[in-house]
Amino acid sequence: MKKKRMIYEGKAKKVYTTEDPNLVIQHFKDDATAFDGKKRGTIVGKGEINNQLSVLLFMTLKEFGIPTHLVKLLGPRDMLVKRLDIVPIEVIVRNIAAGSLSKNLGLPEGTPMKKTVIEFCLKSDELHDPMINRYHIAALGLTSPKRLEKIEEYSLEINKILRKFFKRVNIDLVDFKLEFGLHKGRLLLGDEISPDTCRFWDAKTGHKLDKDRFRRDLGGVEDAYQEVWRRVKGMMPK
Amino acid sequence: MKKKRMIYEGKAKKVYTTEDPNLVIQHFKDDATAFDGKKRGTIVGKGEINNQLSVLLFMTLKEFGIPTHLVKLLGPRDMLVKRLDIVPIEVIVRNIAAGSLSKNLGLPEGTPMKKTVIEFCLKSDELHDPMINRYHIAALGLTSPKRLEKIEEYSLEINKILRKFFKRVNIDLVDFKLEFGLHKGRLLLGDEISPDTCRFWDAKTGHKLDKDRFRRDLGGVEDAYQEVWRRVKGMMPK
Repeated sequence: MKKKRMIYEGKAKKVYTTEDPNLVIQHFKDDATAFDGKKRGTIVGKGEINNQLSVLLFMTLKEFGIPTHLVKLLGPRDMLVKRLDIVPIEVIVRNIAAGSLSKNLGLPEGTPMKKTVIEFCLKSDELHDPMINRYHIAALGLTSPKRLEKIEEYSLEINKILRKFFKRVNIDLVDFKLEFGLHKGRLLLGDEISPDTCRFWDAKTGHKLDKDRFRRDLGGVEDAYQEVWRRVKGMMPK
Repeated sequence: MKKKRMIYEGKAKKVYTTEDPNLVIQHFKDDATAFDGKKRGTIVGKGEINNQLSVLLFMTLKEFGIPTHLVKLLGPRDMLVKRLDIVPIEVIVRNIAAGSLSKNLGLPEGTPMKKTVIEFCLKSDELHDPMINRYHIAALGLTSPKRLEKIEEYSLEINKILRKFFKRVNIDLVDFKLEFGLHKGRLLLGDEISPDTCRFWDAKTGHKLDKDRFRRDLGGVEDAYQEVWRRVKGMMPK
């Protein structure tokens, strides 16, 4: 399956059409941005890690019955996926307080959530992805209440699966972002699952193994991405 | 029933104990603040209007089966109410886009909501009342899911009643804030319902008849409060 025409270029990915109108190719770049693009940089090797880690995690989720857009790994930076009509909502799942939740609710980073928190944000760079709730979603007609319920159900289930998965490699899954879309009317998990879209903390030391190292100028950015990938690969059957 | 000891002084109200430990007196001031207290002023006569309008609206809601903290009108600026353990959530009900919703979601003021929107904010001056959802509420243990459902149910019902009520005096109920609390384990509507806590627009001209005149330096602040009260009083049986 070969790339035809680029139909989208985002902060970290490009998307290409293929000969099959139902399938597109996600190409993962090393480019990194933060704070609505105000901060820009490169994380060498990030594209390969995020692509391959995402494929592996999508395959794991599939085994547990979560439908995703993944078709197959095409190359080090290329993933063949089903074409989605994206639901314009970012779903954030939180197990431990960090980032905007810490800031907004005055909870120190590292405070465990007594119950898993789901947040919804409207996908809009222009509006800086404002937080919304199910009433806004209904009023704006972003998706039906029934489909939103399904999104919440999947998100909680994905959280359970991924927490367990990363626990085995001594990583705490602090929080992560999901995007969903429709393919031939069916709800599928889309986008990627990587240190760009998750907060990963070493379970013993609390050392950050994710994009916060880039956002907050903590150094060791490439090392962190490689460390996550090294641990996850080490767990895989040879 | 006389005031004993002041136990709370807020931006627009003072609360006093009485001889009865179950009852307190809400005293309404003319003081007005906006933007987390950064803007301060006086709206002459506001205390009397907000107190008497709130009593009248609480009585109306009671007729429709909504339990409130109101016991009775005590004086021009004083309302006798049941003492509440306040649920630390501000409930905002929106029929038409205005204020923070317009800003955050990029919807021009005046855009009708296709469905009524409810928002929750954590009551915290320090944190500037951040928006939260039912997952945050559960994780922070602010109230039980069952009680939250009841709060949502009451809020939508109150909206129906108040919209109809104000329609009769040619006022569009754009949005409003509610607070709930527990009295002997029972959920009651608390606080006040007034041009301080609602957005009221003249149904024909769109002229603002609420605290936005103060917030946005539109002039005619006292006139707006008096106009709302004049219209509502005119509808009452003599």
